[in-house]
Amino acid sequence: MNPSTLIQSQNNYSGKSVILRLEFNSESIKFGQVASLISERGGDIVAIDIISGSKTVSVRDLTVNVSDSSDISRITDAIANMKDVKLVHVSDRTFLLHLGGKISIVPKTPIQNRDDLSRVYTPDVARVCLAIKDDPQKSHALTIKRNTVAVISDGSAVLGLGNIGPEPAMPVMEGKAMLFKQFADVDSFPICLDTQDTEEIIRTIKHIAPAFGGINLEDISSPRCFEIESRLRQELDIPVFHDDQHGTAVVLYAGLLNAVKLVGKQVKDLKVVVCGIGAAGIACSKILMAAGVGKIVGVDIEGILNADEEYANPMKQWYAANTNPDREKGGLRDAVRGADVFIGLSKGGLLKREDILTMAKDPIVFAMANPTPEIEPDLIEDIAAVVATGRSDYPNQINNVLCFPGMFRGALDCRASDINEEMKLAAAEAIASIIKDDELNKHYIIPSVFNQEIVRTVRQEVIAAAIRTGVARRVPREFKA
Amino acid sequence: MNPSTLIQSQNNYSGKSVILRLEFNSESIKFGQVASLISERGGDIVAIDIISGSKTVSVRDLTVNVSDSSDISRITDAIANMKDVKLVHVSDRTFLLHLGGKISIVPKTPIQNRDDLSRVYTPDVARVCLAIKDDPQKSHALTIKRNTVAVISDGSAVLGLGNIGPEPAMPVMEGKAMLFKQFADVDSFPICLDTQDTEEIIRTIKHIAPAFGGINLEDISSPRCFEIESRLRQELDIPVFHDDQHGTAVVLYAGLLNAVKLVGKQVKDLKVVVCGIGAAGIACSKILMAAGVGKIVGVDIEGILNADEEYANPMKQWYAANTNPDREKGGLRDAVRGADVFIGLSKGGLLKREDILTMAKDPIVFAMANPTPEIEPDLIEDIAAVVATGRSDYPNQINNVLCFPGMFRGALDCRASDINEEMKLAAAEAIASIIKDDELNKHYIIPSVFNQEIVRTVRQEVIAAAIRTGVARRVPREFKA
Repeated sequence: MNPSTLIQSQNNYSGKSVILRLEFNSESIKFGQVASLISERGGDIVAIDIISGSKTVSVRDLTVNVSDSSDISRITDAIANMKDVKLVHVSDRTFLLHLGGKISIVPKTPIQNRDDLSRVYTPDVARVCLAIKDDPQKSHALTIKRNTVAVISDGSAVLGLGNIGPEPAMPVMEGKAMLFKQFADVDSFPICLDTQDTEEIIRTIKHIAPAFGGINLEDISSPRCFEIESRLRQELDIPVFHDDQHGTAVVLYAGLLNAVKLVGKQVKDLKVVVCGIGAAGIACSKILMAAGVGKIVGVDIEGILNADEEYANPMKQWYAANTNPDREKGGLRDAVRGADVFIGLSKGGLLKREDILTMAKDPIVFAMANPTPEIEPDLIEDIAAVVATGRSDYPNQINNVLCFPGMFRGALDCRASDINEEMKLAAAEAIASIIKDDELNKHYIIPSVFNQEIVRTVRQEVIAAAIRTGVARRVPREFKA
Repeated sequence: MNPSTLIQSQNNYSGKSVILRLEFNSESIKFGQVASLISERGGDIVAIDIISGSKTVSVRDLTVNVSDSSDISRITDAIANMKDVKLVHVSDRTFLLHLGGKISIVPKTPIQNRDDLSRVYTPDVARVCLAIKDDPQKSHALTIKRNTVAVISDGSAVLGLGNIGPEPAMPVMEGKAMLFKQFADVDSFPICLDTQDTEEIIRTIKHIAPAFGGINLEDISSPRCFEIESRLRQELDIPVFHDDQHGTAVVLYAGLLNAVKLVGKQVKDLKVVVCGIGAAGIACSKILMAAGVGKIVGVDIEGILNADEEYANPMKQWYAANTNPDREKGGLRDAVRGADVFIGLSKGGLLKREDILTMAKDPIVFAMANPTPEIEPDLIEDIAAVVATGRSDYPNQINNVLCFPGMFRGALDCRASDINEEMKLAAAEAIASIIKDDELNKHYIIPSVFNQEIVRTVRQEVIAAAIRTGVARRVPREFKA
């Protein structure tokens, strides 16, 4: 999870949804009476399932959307007070969806008889084992490694919830596994680690790596995430990708490419302010460096990071030494003055309309703090050229789901040994390219996660970049021409 | 894998199967000619798929079973010599079944729109995360933990292949995951570890445990398997079950119960010789002790294990001190004299017909070495009351598949914190009970793995035993009455 998709518990735009099971006397009560009562108290009945019905008694499940939890109790209290209606139970749709977990592991072929059994298991499976022993690369063809990615977290930085630990993090990782399969047909298994020690995490992941064709690190807090990812990239021969860093960076850069195109500027000429120098902020800065952005200025709680200062955090020390060529000093307000682009991965409400007015012509604002952006898009609608956030209730949502499915689809299909900067840039360009020039406008710089072109396009460009940079260990047929 | 299901490469009763793709001139060649040629060279055509056909050229896939690999080359050589027939390619059915792995991970519900996305993933998933954080036991209900078992190996003792390492072991673990799902609807994920260090294995499994409701250890060599299992049982609150030990022991004891019933003896009166004091031999001995068998005598390469000797291997030292009450000494031949039951988990051909003649009346022989039993059943058909082996081409196959699916189905359904001796005994009794008194005979003491009663019956008895012994953390509804 990148900060741009943090929980938005305060403004839960998806709405809450409950299922009310009602039993009522169908002679004395008309269903319309119940429906009105629910509507009047803020409930929107979106589905009705008749569970049983007789001349006198009817049992129905009503799926009811509400905008606020308090609506639920107002509705259930009112029903409790109705004569001849009994509220059998109330189920929360989201919790119902989670019962027993959200993914399942299934055989690709049934085992119907002894012949099947002896092929997929003993004794005949031994021939396959020996073939892999003779040529270890065959594990990519003859085991799930070909199509399987581990989604691994230690539960230390989950959504906006913080360090909630491994079991509570599982629903997020299961959700990610669903997305991998649904969007890119990648099999993915969620693993939540019962340790937050950097060396233990590295060792554990190395030990379990043989089953997997790739590792997606998720929701591991900074600064441990840097060491864990870089060590694993060195020590394993499969791609290791910390989505909170690079997923965010890729999608941000995709959005920036289209925003810059819209205002007619060049990437190399930009002055970009990055606010919030955590895992995602650093990754965003790195992809911008790789893309050739001329001037990047980082701002954190210490103010503008600059090479004249010393920082206890080694990543900030590195950042100060490698950005801010003019050694600017001061606070956020000073940094944004004259900047072309603001990238916020910090916290809500840090910026004011007046700050945007001090930016260069056609300011581009990526205010990705969650649940509240650094500045509300509505406040600067008239003065900003482009505004993007992490939220789906505003235009231009920077959402990692645009990147990771296609990125790993491509990496697996060419048996990439790594996901390198070129592949990330290629993925960003692929995402940006989905929006054609005649579609591009200030409210549409980034495609929807449900756009069916995305995975195919990202995969294609990622594989091409992997082949170009020598990390592909297999060239898919369509790239051989 | 227990030794009873070791690879039987020499007598591969499942037969080999290949798919031959042939292109032939349908004007000059009749298919019957090709078919006769294949049959004459030992091939049995079991399926024909027409890939394409025109007036002049026909392309067909022939699935051909052969009893021996050499038949394949004889067939393909003969086809190569035929005029107007081209052998396009030859595929091995077993390898085809393994392409891309044998299991897949699928979402239980589709993500069709933003509302679905926000429930299974951010932002709404956060409510589920917090519910688990507030009450960690909810992870059993709201995550895959409820139904998911890890199948974990270090690849150190795979089938009869020995220490082949993690990647080559994956096809076996994937096969096991298929069996878990097919037979007991248990989701199971295969993990092969890239370490064979006892402490590293224990640490790694503890670190990845939060996702799982149970751990099935597999194909880990002795003696490390004992320490790994016993430590994990102590240190984790989910069941840890080394199938090579206990799966074998449970199924063996199930068979023994029925064999003893058949000959009219009592378990407590038996003298049992266990030959091969490795992981499976020790586990079989332990279940017999728990069942109250009067006299157990172990034999290994040192001869009869007895308390007057010192053994370097601490398990053998323990074994000698806790069995063989009469301090018998000598070799295998001495041990079997007067014994009621022989249990072999050693190697082929150790016993002779004369040895069986020295056993007590109605000798019961479990000759489970693979691929060759300690004595061929045919040699003692007339003098043994019952003979069982690990092979499916003889009657009475001792096969772990009879135990682990139902065992874990039961353990998961009652959220067992452990699989204890009582649950193992209960599983064995359940398996034995499948065969009714009027069906029981010397060739039918153990049911087929495809018997549909097994999982249900084992589950039932395992749950009852778990509740009785206080390791069940949830009482399924049908046990509440």
